[in-house]
Amino acid sequence: MDKLTVTREHRPDDIAVTIGPSRIGNGEFLLIAGPCAVETPEQMAGIVAMLAGNPAGMLRGGAFKPRTSPYAFQGLGRDGLVLLREAADRLGIPVLTEVTDTTHLELVLEFADAIQIGSRNMSAYELLKAVGRQSKPVVLKRGMAATVREFLYAAEYIVAGGNEQIILCERGIRSFDPTYRNVVDLNTVAWLKAHCPFPVVVDPSHGSGRVDLVTPLSRAAIAAGADGLMVEVHPNPGCARSDGDQSLDPAAYRDWHRACLDLARFMGRTC
Amino acid sequence: MDKLTVTREHRPDDIAVTIGPSRIGNGEFLLIAGPCAVETPEQMAGIVAMLAGNPAGMLRGGAFKPRTSPYAFQGLGRDGLVLLREAADRLGIPVLTEVTDTTHLELVLEFADAIQIGSRNMSAYELLKAVGRQSKPVVLKRGMAATVREFLYAAEYIVAGGNEQIILCERGIRSFDPTYRNVVDLNTVAWLKAHCPFPVVVDPSHGSGRVDLVTPLSRAAIAAGADGLMVEVHPNPGCARSDGDQSLDPAAYRDWHRACLDLARFMGRTC
Amino acid sequence: MDKLTVTREHRPDDIAVTIGPSRIGNGEFLLIAGPCAVETPEQMAGIVAMLAGNPAGMLRGGAFKPRTSPYAFQGLGRDGLVLLREAADRLGIPVLTEVTDTTHLELVLEFADAIQIGSRNMSAYELLKAVGRQSKPVVLKRGMAATVREFLYAAEYIVAGGNEQIILCERGIRSFDPTYRNVVDLNTVAWLKAHCPFPVVVDPSHGSGRVDLVTPLSRAAIAAGADGLMVEVHPNPGCARSDGDQSLDPAAYRDWHRACLDLARFMGRTC
Amino acid sequence: MDKLTVTREHRPDDIAVTIGPSRIGNGEFLLIAGPCAVETPEQMAGIVAMLAGNPAGMLRGGAFKPRTSPYAFQGLGRDGLVLLREAADRLGIPVLTEVTDTTHLELVLEFADAIQIGSRNMSAYELLKAVGRQSKPVVLKRGMAATVREFLYAAEYIVAGGNEQIILCERGIRSFDPTYRNVVDLNTVAWLKAHCPFPVVVDPSHGSGRVDLVTPLSRAAIAAGADGLMVEVHPNPGCARSDGDQSLDPAAYRDWHRACLDLARFMGRTC
Repeated sequence: MDKLTVTREHRPDDIAVTIGPSRIGNGEFLLIAGPCAVETPEQMAGIVAMLAGNPAGMLRGGAFKPRTSPYAFQGLGRDGLVLLREAADRLGIPVLTEVTDTTHLELVLEFADAIQIGSRNMSAYELLKAVGRQSKPVVLKRGMAATVREFLYAAEYIVAGGNEQIILCERGIRSFDPTYRNVVDLNTVAWLKAHCPFPVVVDPSHGSGRVDLVTPLSRAAIAAGADGLMVEVHPNPGCARSDGDQSLDPAAYRDWHRACLDLARFMGRTC
Repeated sequence: MDKLTVTREHRPDDIAVTIGPSRIGNGEFLLIAGPCAVETPEQMAGIVAMLAGNPAGMLRGGAFKPRTSPYAFQGLGRDGLVLLREAADRLGIPVLTEVTDTTHLELVLEFADAIQIGSRNMSAYELLKAVGRQSKPVVLKRGMAATVREFLYAAEYIVAGGNEQIILCERGIRSFDPTYRNVVDLNTVAWLKAHCPFPVVVDPSHGSGRVDLVTPLSRAAIAAGADGLMVEVHPNPGCARSDGDQSLDPAAYRDWHRACLDLARFMGRTC
Repeated sequence: MDKLTVTREHRPDDIAVTIGPSRIGNGEFLLIAGPCAVETPEQMAGIVAMLAGNPAGMLRGGAFKPRTSPYAFQGLGRDGLVLLREAADRLGIPVLTEVTDTTHLELVLEFADAIQIGSRNMSAYELLKAVGRQSKPVVLKRGMAATVREFLYAAEYIVAGGNEQIILCERGIRSFDPTYRNVVDLNTVAWLKAHCPFPVVVDPSHGSGRVDLVTPLSRAAIAAGADGLMVEVHPNPGCARSDGDQSLDPAAYRDWHRACLDLARFMGRTC
Repeated sequence: MDKLTVTREHRPDDIAVTIGPSRIGNGEFLLIAGPCAVETPEQMAGIVAMLAGNPAGMLRGGAFKPRTSPYAFQGLGRDGLVLLREAADRLGIPVLTEVTDTTHLELVLEFADAIQIGSRNMSAYELLKAVGRQSKPVVLKRGMAATVREFLYAAEYIVAGGNEQIILCERGIRSFDPTYRNVVDLNTVAWLKAHCPFPVVVDPSHGSGRVDLVTPLSRAAIAAGADGLMVEVHPNPGCARSDGDQSLDPAAYRDWHRACLDLARFMGRTC
């Protein structure tokens, strides 16, 4: 097997990642929230209102959406990035958004403070090389059937390009049970915290596909050692153009926010 | 699909289960600890010493062991039950032990306060019927690739026989990743707490197969809503005849005990 | 790891299994057909008519049915065994039926020529020991998430008891895709034929859960090296009390029969 | 769910795909062979010698290799394409090679007659759109944990761009069993042949990761209805820079070639 430098054997200490005014890792806890896809100015105004009351450390939202069907809403592209940037600026927090192809990277970097590599692209190695050659932080989501070893090597691609500002994201693995969209794998969170220096966030929205499971899974992730959470929120999930079933509405987001921060503080995290 | 009565639709309120002086469910939290297999009087004396200092609410231990190989240690049978009973009596706590075949049930019931149905037998329906016809509490472990629906129907077999004293146990599902023996599925714990009235315990020892992951996974289980935990402990795991890699030694057990009870209390559980 | 004697390292040559007038292995090919469950004398008369025209080498049928729900049809028990025996005697072929609990074994042995251990019981080790202590051939079905190594050790349990008349049955593994009930694993069939001396049969009925896939999967199994096939048939699948979706009706059975035997002969099998 | 036009409901008849002088589908059978990666002129001379004696209808080989580790051999890039083209021209057959990023597509199209989308990129939707906008045939490999529905929608992305020259490739799914690299899923081959008009090929090299299973799995694929096979070959597998364990050497290739064509002819395929 080839060398692997993204483990504590080579980098014993926690690596904290800084995104503008926000920080994650080495004891600092980060909430990332936002819609699945940027849809309209009205939707983004609703998001701003939600996050103004219960602050997150980073705004997430998709402008280039990887959708199973070519006929499903593919995102607003550049217009979506503009709306996302404006919303984040109003909140004074950084922007995280996904890049799904190397040819979009330059455009996305104009607007984003951190780049998301989605689950479907964890093994898109040319894309990993490309985000490794630039310096903004990268949220690397685990592939839906990727082993821990494959996940680490994907991070190694980014590090090999020169970028060590990596946040690993566990977002659920594919299982045999149709009850859930995916199953959150906290074995991997606990393993990563023990063996890998990068901050780890958990995405319970994709990790379950069900809004009723988001809070208990979020709290479980914190107790397993996660450094942050990423959730999908929407001012009106019933009207969302994607992922409505797993998006928190304003009331649920408020309850989730308090439940998570209380536990993170109990676990000794700074937040 | 056939009717299913083990859901909150039919039984809205939490069902608490009483095993002698111990209780689980409806807010009461239970730790279950003990060796994988009962091996020797000396080993059991070591277990008693461990649990005397940091009490568990129930002693687990195997006398009839389901082992992958016919040449592996199969358990001490009746002699193991005797040793287990003596140890529990010294501690003043109830005994939980596995029954692997209907023909053993009568013998096991002489010694045990609660009966464990192991993962390999979750669909041994004659055995489920048999434990449903007796009145002692049953810890029903989920099959390693059982869906939630199949798990619920296994409980339904026991209820159909007349026994509603059921504790459900999530013990890890089989995944594609060889890093772990199994992956703890807390989606299912969260789902069960929302939709099913029975207490739920998590077994992080089998759920990971690695002692270094037992504490973070235990805490995650509590935060996800579990009513209890079941762990394997051994006075000297390096000499254990089975499951040494996943058994807590005395020092690790002590740390685990405190970490879990602290969190359970924070989560509002009685313990 | 413990010793494993059921491999070609220890038993280099093919082991043929004889069940009354029928034989499988070492070049001899066997078709096993019958209903999921024995239901009525009329149904069994229909089965006899189907098999009279297109002979199978063994009649399968369930009298003790392992069903997910306790309220689903559980089989006719002794009455089912009687009907099964009569049907087989009219056809002059041996009977294969499942035993789901050690306490049923004696009764089943009165009527059956070969014993089936079902998928849910592949790791019911006391049952494996019990069928190992008697001398009738055993059809051992692979657990739905059992590794090859676990499958071999289950066979080892039977051999350790003294019975080497074992037929291994691949019946599909559990996967992430809800399109099928299971996925037939022919990697395992090919691996077993190379490394293990026992005859191997494939059950494409459970292996797909869809009657439209039974013939191509049957032919694939033969081409992969299987020594036989086991299929579910019913004179009127729409009225079957279980597994109707995967049972061949008389016309489909006739076509399947010819398609399979033609290919088996092309592959050099005696049938 | 969004509309899906790549099914027989919309396109009832088999679609044959033509790649230069070769054809697949609608009864015509195609063998695709070549090395995992193009390595050296000497290696390619060895490949030419192998295929000269036992012809394949298309030469495969990788110039841009998606490798788990960034430090593993990444392919020769343009130089590899030149070597591949020369070898194919000497054999008079078309070239199939993988494109792993949209920015490579133009270069690859200069040299290749057909474009492969690898398993890791089945959901790289921008890449699918890009190959949909050009007219050369596309071999679309199934993702290692993709459902049939997701696989069909990936094909739909290509069709939506205007290209209907698609060959679907089943290359094994990820399972819980470490015995194999993957498990060939012939349920899906049988399902696709019944419900989808595109030709289907199977890759037993990646589908097992073991050279000893390639021939039985190839024959199984043919019997399940596959229209072609894709295998990895190497003049000296022990020295291969990647996938040596699953590459056929000259003698094994010769035997495989005859075994497969014999069976394909028996199954009524033109080859």
